[in-house]
Amino acid sequence: MRSFEPGGSAVVVGAGGGIGAALVSGLLQTEAFSSVWALSRDGDTGRDGRLRRGRIDVGDEPSIAAACLSLSLGVEQGAGPIRLVIVATGMLHRPGMQPEKTYRALDADALMLSYRINAIGPALVAKHMLPLLARPGRAVFAALSARVGSIGDNRTGGWHGYRASKAALNMILLNLAIETQRRAPDTLVVGLHPGTVDSGLSRPFQRGVAEDRLFTPAHSADRLLAVIDGLGAGDSGRVLDWSGQVVVP
Amino acid sequence: MRSFEPGGSAVVVGAGGGIGAALVSGLLQTEAFSSVWALSRDGDTGRDGRLRRGRIDVGDEPSIAAACLSLSLGVEQGAGPIRLVIVATGMLHRPGMQPEKTYRALDADALMLSYRINAIGPALVAKHMLPLLARPGRAVFAALSARVGSIGDNRTGGWHGYRASKAALNMILLNLAIETQRRAPDTLVVGLHPGTVDSGLSRPFQRGVAEDRLFTPAHSADRLLAVIDGLGAGDSGRVLDWSGQVVVP
Repeated sequence: MRSFEPGGSAVVVGAGGGIGAALVSGLLQTEAFSSVWALSRDGDTGRDGRLRRGRIDVGDEPSIAAACLSLSLGVEQGAGPIRLVIVATGMLHRPGMQPEKTYRALDADALMLSYRINAIGPALVAKHMLPLLARPGRAVFAALSARVGSIGDNRTGGWHGYRASKAALNMILLNLAIETQRRAPDTLVVGLHPGTVDSGLSRPFQRGVAEDRLFTPAHSADRLLAVIDGLGAGDSGRVLDWSGQVVVP
Repeated sequence: MRSFEPGGSAVVVGAGGGIGAALVSGLLQTEAFSSVWALSRDGDTGRDGRLRRGRIDVGDEPSIAAACLSLSLGVEQGAGPIRLVIVATGMLHRPGMQPEKTYRALDADALMLSYRINAIGPALVAKHMLPLLARPGRAVFAALSARVGSIGDNRTGGWHGYRASKAALNMILLNLAIETQRRAPDTLVVGLHPGTVDSGLSRPFQRGVAEDRLFTPAHSADRLLAVIDGLGAGDSGRVLDWSGQVVVP
């Protein structure tokens, strides 16, 4: 990752997930960052060389604020300015909650939960972490979105709560990009579509996915880090897929 | 409204609002419908010629289901098959809750409330009312959306909760259109942008709106009914503005 000034920090929110964990590994391999924070809801805490593990629950704003206090303290103590934040949280299903196959399955509580996790969570992380990003110098705030959050790309319908929450997330990311462009023009905000990754999120829905399109978390993470590395100013506010292609709104 | 088979019913959900009330008046004027239901959260109930007033709270699914029972009963008793449903509910602000001017104002509760009213409400109405729409024959399910719910049209940012909830609504409407196309190809599902209308929703935000672009509710309603009348099969799933122009996703 040559586009970032060396000696900075990277933060992965949702490091307990398949893609999140792979992003942490990928970031440690690049050596572009002197510190890599792996924040997760339930994981270990503590420091191990360049890796710093901590807790965050994106559904709980005080938890986000507390994580940001730790980040600020780390920066003050020499971890290096924060140049990259990736939010890798997200929910498609849970025990007892499957994506809707028909509008007849629409359920207010399920819709609210998807929105809380997929849209509000990253929004609150941005609220607290965007002000921590290093200035001047290149910085990136990225959140995992999904191609199915694209209205222009939706041919098949279904998955109402997930699709709607990701469309909402994409709108919020664009709003963040517009505001950030005014205050910190070197800071970019993007959504990322990781492809279909062999993770807990997609596992029940992999049937019909061509083998060469079912990525390992490590492969997806490598592609996403390359996309982040190659972002230009004009990409801020966009959603890009693992290959760097723009996902239409 | 010549595109609908005569003798049917039309339903306005949110008839207590500025645009909703004007839609009811406009529908009564067209004489295209033998019955017009005006459903609102707090309004009067009862029958007055072709007008039938009833209650609905789109934030409460049992209330939606109860309203649908009344509709079904009315149809059985000769009100005419339901050929048009317009959801005219929506929220941009409340006492103590203003649209966000910056991401620093993002608030989980406010985001949830916007989503509940602007996206989940119309979704639940669709869940219960789409099955009531007359088949065969032309039928339309429309919901008020907003141009600011378009990601492709967003140049200024802000209003995060409202924008995000309307983007989500637009996704849900497209999903409804896709599924409905399979089951009932003559039933169209659309979102409508009413323009900036002199109503309670827009009143605090009218500064800077050119006088000829600040519509009366009656003018907006007339334009929207003309747009509904002119819808073609290819419009299902789209958002159209008061002039019939497609709003990009």
